[in-house]
Amino acid sequence: MNICRTKKQLKLAVKQAASQGKSIGFVPTMGYLHDGHASLLRAAREENDVVVLSIFVNPMQFGPNEDLERYPRDEERDLALAASCSTDIVFLPTVEEMYPSKPLTSITVRSVTERLCGASRPGHFDGVGLVVSKLFHLVQPDRAYFGMKDAQQVAVIEQMVLDLDMNVEIVPCPIVREPDGLALSSRNVYLSPAHRTEAAVLSQSLGELAQALNVSSSMTGAQCVALITNKIKETSGEIDYVELLEYPSLRTVAMHIPLDRVLSGQRFIVALAVKFGSTRLIDNALFHVEEVIERV
Amino acid sequence: MNICRTKKQLKLAVKQAASQGKSIGFVPTMGYLHDGHASLLRAAREENDVVVLSIFVNPMQFGPNEDLERYPRDEERDLALAASCSTDIVFLPTVEEMYPSKPLTSITVRSVTERLCGASRPGHFDGVGLVVSKLFHLVQPDRAYFGMKDAQQVAVIEQMVLDLDMNVEIVPCPIVREPDGLALSSRNVYLSPAHRTEAAVLSQSLGELAQALNVSSSMTGAQCVALITNKIKETSGEIDYVELLEYPSLRTVAMHIPLDRVLSGQRFIVALAVKFGSTRLIDNALFHVEEVIERV
Repeated sequence: MNICRTKKQLKLAVKQAASQGKSIGFVPTMGYLHDGHASLLRAAREENDVVVLSIFVNPMQFGPNEDLERYPRDEERDLALAASCSTDIVFLPTVEEMYPSKPLTSITVRSVTERLCGASRPGHFDGVGLVVSKLFHLVQPDRAYFGMKDAQQVAVIEQMVLDLDMNVEIVPCPIVREPDGLALSSRNVYLSPAHRTEAAVLSQSLGELAQALNVSSSMTGAQCVALITNKIKETSGEIDYVELLEYPSLRTVAMHIPLDRVLSGQRFIVALAVKFGSTRLIDNALFHVEEVIERV
Repeated sequence: MNICRTKKQLKLAVKQAASQGKSIGFVPTMGYLHDGHASLLRAAREENDVVVLSIFVNPMQFGPNEDLERYPRDEERDLALAASCSTDIVFLPTVEEMYPSKPLTSITVRSVTERLCGASRPGHFDGVGLVVSKLFHLVQPDRAYFGMKDAQQVAVIEQMVLDLDMNVEIVPCPIVREPDGLALSSRNVYLSPAHRTEAAVLSQSLGELAQALNVSSSMTGAQCVALITNKIKETSGEIDYVELLEYPSLRTVAMHIPLDRVLSGQRFIVALAVKFGSTRLIDNALFHVEEVIERV
């Protein structure tokens, strides 16, 4: 496994692969890897000649009052997991290596960033767009793998790739969950045991919604949101948002008309962000409206 | 000469070149080519295996009251000039091909866009950044060639390439001029005969400034600007701006202190934009301050 700490080392490694006509699969992460990341690495491994993993806690995507400083890090464990997934190249830059001077360039994706985390975390997706754009230019991947837990991130990056004619295929991968349904996240380690137990409510409320929609496609958006909200209110969780939006446009949906009337043939997302103590967790489920509403 | 009208055709042509390990030199233009463009193509020809020219009048970099509709076009003549410079690939997309849907992504470069055309033409450099970024992703050049008549554009693109880790070398090329000094521009065809004669004042005033600075390095910025401004006021030209700034940062300079005291070891630019009738022309000169001030 080739561990690159500088852009120069990475570019050389990538150039060698490209000169041999090898395809490159790329998994950008902030480290503290879990089985969700492993699923991305395995998908990349299956579909490409060379697998590149980046581990970089990107300060530009954290707000001033967010958890940049305490974000969990464990390089040794990350490298062991990377090796166990047959990763070829790991890019492990410092902040100074990625940003030798304060960047004057910003990338903003409008519309898809207006709601959800785009509203709760101002500037977050500009930071994501900047770092992903930099990493794509350094790695020049054929395919890049992202987890659907960050469904809005996937939508933002797909839009950026489309608008900028970036030569990379974005591969969204399913959310990986704990046995009780909690979506894997590096931030789960922050949770107290009591909050960890309660946090299962996120996925469980989405599961109950899926069942309810299966029974009646004529539920309204407002009824869907209320079902989730009421369930979460039975815990100590503090709701940041529970929203139902078109996907991947993330446009708003008429909330008081049955979903099968407003969204025929379309996909929608139910996305939530909830704080347990000082730990903010997100989760979501995608649905497709045909004659009935199916979870996808 | 391979003429590509779609992104798909272009990507195929570029991929073939790359798979043979060939270096790519790229000259992005808005067409109506003149000897300035030819000098870029010749520079690209000398330094690369494959030369790609793009001709695209980019609506995103024109303001609502600018000359998008009447911008001069002559595809046949452009292709003849491209062929005479041994161009290998010409990319000639329509607006619909470049922007199949309204882009939601914008690229903004701060600081270097605050003055000069960045101030006079709001949104102009966002449009330039977007289209150049798209073209770089499509062409994947090793080197890209830009004329120094658009010195601010060069500074903006160099900053974008740096900040986004784009894998391309930006090659600035000298301004090409008519015998009387007028900088070549596709927009010169708009000029009436009388304005065409008067327009030589732009380069002539810059030449006089260079001579004055050669005699006395202790001139202030204000004195330099006044020298140019007074000269232009002898004509019917309507001044948009005459500015003296650091280059390439395009930061302001203390205007009432001798230049050799405020800018030791640095470069500065004197840049002007002047309207003759409805035609807006730009020109500039770069200077370097060592023990004396030298034009570069």
